[in-house]
Amino acid sequence: MSKKLTGIGASDGIAIAKTYLLVEDHIKVTDSKAKDVEKELKLIESSLAKAKADLSNLQKIAMEKLGPEKAAIFEAHEQILEDPAMSDEWNQIVKNEGLNAAFAVKSVADKYSAMFLAMDDDYFKERAADVKDVTERLIRYILGMPVLDLATINEEVIIVADDLTPSQTAQLNPKFVKGFATNIGGRTSHAAIMARSLEIPAVLGLKNITSTVKSGEIIAIDGESGELEIAPAKVAEWKEKSENFLKFKKELESFKDKKTVTKDGYDKFILEGNIGSPKDVEGVLNNGGEGIGLFRSEFLYMDNDHFPTEEEQFVAYKKVVEDMKGHVTIIRTLDIGGDKKLSYFKFPEEMNPFLGYRAIRFTLDRKDIFREQIRALLRASAFGPLGIMFPMIATIDEFKAAKQFTLDCKKELEKEGVKVGKDLQIGMMVEIPAAAVNAEKFAKHADFFSVGTNDLVQYSMAADRMSENVTYLYQPYNPSILRLLKMTIDGAHKHGKWAGMCGEMAGEPKALPLLMGLGLDAFSMSATSILRARSIMSKLDLKDTQKLAEQALDCETTDDVIKLVDELLKKAKV
Amino acid sequence: MSKKLTGIGASDGIAIAKTYLLVEDHIKVTDSKAKDVEKELKLIESSLAKAKADLSNLQKIAMEKLGPEKAAIFEAHEQILEDPAMSDEWNQIVKNEGLNAAFAVKSVADKYSAMFLAMDDDYFKERAADVKDVTERLIRYILGMPVLDLATINEEVIIVADDLTPSQTAQLNPKFVKGFATNIGGRTSHAAIMARSLEIPAVLGLKNITSTVKSGEIIAIDGESGELEIAPAKVAEWKEKSENFLKFKKELESFKDKKTVTKDGYDKFILEGNIGSPKDVEGVLNNGGEGIGLFRSEFLYMDNDHFPTEEEQFVAYKKVVEDMKGHVTIIRTLDIGGDKKLSYFKFPEEMNPFLGYRAIRFTLDRKDIFREQIRALLRASAFGPLGIMFPMIATIDEFKAAKQFTLDCKKELEKEGVKVGKDLQIGMMVEIPAAAVNAEKFAKHADFFSVGTNDLVQYSMAADRMSENVTYLYQPYNPSILRLLKMTIDGAHKHGKWAGMCGEMAGEPKALPLLMGLGLDAFSMSATSILRARSIMSKLDLKDTQKLAEQALDCETTDDVIKLVDELLKKAKV
Repeated sequence: MSKKLTGIGASDGIAIAKTYLLVEDHIKVTDSKAKDVEKELKLIESSLAKAKADLSNLQKIAMEKLGPEKAAIFEAHEQILEDPAMSDEWNQIVKNEGLNAAFAVKSVADKYSAMFLAMDDDYFKERAADVKDVTERLIRYILGMPVLDLATINEEVIIVADDLTPSQTAQLNPKFVKGFATNIGGRTSHAAIMARSLEIPAVLGLKNITSTVKSGEIIAIDGESGELEIAPAKVAEWKEKSENFLKFKKELESFKDKKTVTKDGYDKFILEGNIGSPKDVEGVLNNGGEGIGLFRSEFLYMDNDHFPTEEEQFVAYKKVVEDMKGHVTIIRTLDIGGDKKLSYFKFPEEMNPFLGYRAIRFTLDRKDIFREQIRALLRASAFGPLGIMFPMIATIDEFKAAKQFTLDCKKELEKEGVKVGKDLQIGMMVEIPAAAVNAEKFAKHADFFSVGTNDLVQYSMAADRMSENVTYLYQPYNPSILRLLKMTIDGAHKHGKWAGMCGEMAGEPKALPLLMGLGLDAFSMSATSILRARSIMSKLDLKDTQKLAEQALDCETTDDVIKLVDELLKKAKV
Repeated sequence: MSKKLTGIGASDGIAIAKTYLLVEDHIKVTDSKAKDVEKELKLIESSLAKAKADLSNLQKIAMEKLGPEKAAIFEAHEQILEDPAMSDEWNQIVKNEGLNAAFAVKSVADKYSAMFLAMDDDYFKERAADVKDVTERLIRYILGMPVLDLATINEEVIIVADDLTPSQTAQLNPKFVKGFATNIGGRTSHAAIMARSLEIPAVLGLKNITSTVKSGEIIAIDGESGELEIAPAKVAEWKEKSENFLKFKKELESFKDKKTVTKDGYDKFILEGNIGSPKDVEGVLNNGGEGIGLFRSEFLYMDNDHFPTEEEQFVAYKKVVEDMKGHVTIIRTLDIGGDKKLSYFKFPEEMNPFLGYRAIRFTLDRKDIFREQIRALLRASAFGPLGIMFPMIATIDEFKAAKQFTLDCKKELEKEGVKVGKDLQIGMMVEIPAAAVNAEKFAKHADFFSVGTNDLVQYSMAADRMSENVTYLYQPYNPSILRLLKMTIDGAHKHGKWAGMCGEMAGEPKALPLLMGLGLDAFSMSATSILRARSIMSKLDLKDTQKLAEQALDCETTDDVIKLVDELLKKAKV
């Protein structure tokens, strides 16, 4: 009898196949004394060699299937096994305390893993998972336990597991592995990221799927909705769903190298990607992005133990600009403070950090720190079209101060004989109501605007979207917000400048017709949303969206606006 | 030789007179045993009688000089002395521990006073001062020490003291006491409030004035600037300053019963007062207020240990409405949350309370609490013109929900046979950017707007004005804010509604010409600012202010706006 479950849709797609139940026998380690210390030490050594051989093999497989970025994780894993601090420690435990090899390795692994977990940073939390993954392999070899080799799978399956480790996912051959379903994890877990890289569907967070389904049983999963069906009743329906998805994907693929053109032929809209680090550029280009509308420079500051130097920043910015091969890259200057903190700098305690000392307020106050970034950006601008964007601008005084500081740094560099790009643009985020309301005046000074909808909505509604008591006020489609967008866009155009958007809203299907109608020039979104946006825009008449925007501005409530949008999208068969 | 000092100007006016140095001999109390317990108990009794006699005498004096509100404090003092819990305690200490009367009274007084001080509420902190004041008098009688009688002063003096207690200030005869200067205290201390009631100048917070000046020395004080000069060099200059002040005051007085008329004859502006409790009505009427533009209903909730009942609220609202004798009273519904907490209700912990669960968001969520207030307001509306005003409205949905709830309560009351006023108005605060931007649409539903500039500026600039790092962004004169004001006012007028302002800005001399020019209808401010505002407005041509507003809207920065305002005020000789 069929049974339906719902988890978290973590990677789009439909799959229907046999269950490959990945339940490994649990490792049992006791603190028994080593019978022969020398033998135990040698056992560690030989097991280490096997584990390392596996890892370099996995690295090769991953390189072929997933590309260099994803393969790099196995290099990192090898480095963990080669870390002399760790191996010294477990060898000492065997030698000095006379304990067995498996126990020694496990206690050191647990210690390091706990240490990483204690750090309040996602980066280090991932490192804990890496240590666990890699040392488990080592312990299995020490104990003479089987090390599962998913690479041997040679029939179509959906893997069902508690969770998937990086080394497990790297072995998966998408030719046979059609998807996976796990007990734990969510959209940002390692398994989710890997599934999206492999372009196979995944449903995670199903809680106890490993004890609900039997090995070999047919299951079907929908990686968008998070549905999972055991022994599906209507196989034909699932197959049709799957075909539709593949057709849709193929259709999106066809938009990759095309311009964005509306149904009635308007072709000036630009679709761009938001990125958080230079390695994300690839995804934007692969998804037909025509530029980077937002490069969040925070990663350089947050994954660090000091304020990055001019040189460190220059290397990163230059790489992005070069990788973008002539497409524009808009880099936002440091937007720290609020909820984003640094381990090496103490921000003042504030009652309302979202209304406090952050972003441009911080950098204009700390020109020593600002200078390093501005100089790095100016130097990178010599290698391709670059825009410098200031966050959290509330007054024209602030914008003018930041711009003047940039121009002063430029003069300084030129005096030093350093080249600065000719096409440098200096613009600003519009994310504070005061800026949107008077955009027309700001546009005299700024080369461009980019609307940050998350903050703009938050401040305009006076509602912290993190506070569950007032999330109902997070209404990007509210007519008041649309009016602010109109003021921003019209303000830019009045002075011949362009207006973009890099908030979440820019990639939302329901937002697209409104933003097109309001005259937004550039839409910057997560890479994976670009092709869908281009497809939707190709089905809409610009004239219809302009009429829609006019009607929406005249609405009273968010619901009224959404109703209008839904009607148009339905009419256009989106 | 003359010597200049600067303290806190706490009550306007100029005085020049001899110093009356009020330095009381310090009370010394030891924990020595009572020689005769019975005698000690009788001593307490007889001293209590003397202290009570003093207090009822002081009450009479205060009633004549200061009116019933201020005299009430001595009734409260008598009640403290009559509190059986306190007298039981000190009698027990004498009886059971055999300690002396003064020590017993002092330890009980210290205990109660510490208890009140520990409460995080200004109301209770004041109660601590009351206990101290009244028990000190009692202890002086017990110890046979002189109890200073300031009522005997019969020549013109300025009193110089460490601080002034309520009972001391009540004895002051303004015929002879020309002002006072103290070591401690600020604009909100008891001494400051009393000085303003007595209409005599006061300079407080001078730190060590009692040890700097000698009794009998001539001193001059300016209660506005906070200046104090010992042995003033230029007496004639001080006298001229004093005369100018009296002339200015007289001029203001002349505006008390007049309408507000601009120089070119426009007479539709309404000047009103903001109040925090029913006893503030008197001050508004005495200062020529034409209504209450904002009655903050929080006092009923904060000075309490439970949510006030419908009946408790009705009594307070009815009193205000009746006392206003036909002038309109706008009462704001509960604006709690953010930085305003209740001792008997736990608000959720939020990262940014200013962007959180507060005001209308709380009351719409807790209709049980809201109902009590709305019913009380509706019932009070039968006794005079009343406006119900909802705070923190961000969306039309919210306003409609609050209005509908009010109309439902009205129906309910009418079914119960309870009368509701015919002239009831239902309006809203405009203090969230989303409301200002779309005011035109809100005005279809609301009977009136009242702009809360503190919050509107805070949200529009995304800057918490309590955070010292970003206070520079608190710019009510910023062109962006002026644009929001224009949208609000124009939006109201488009639908024939009125727009007022009850934020601090409404009473500021520099704001007046801008607000007049923008077409604001009602200006609500602290009572003591009303006559000054009327005087300034009488010196301005409406046409000039309209031109000013137009130019200001076209400015880029706050500085540019202020420059224009200053020019106009100078031209108009304000």
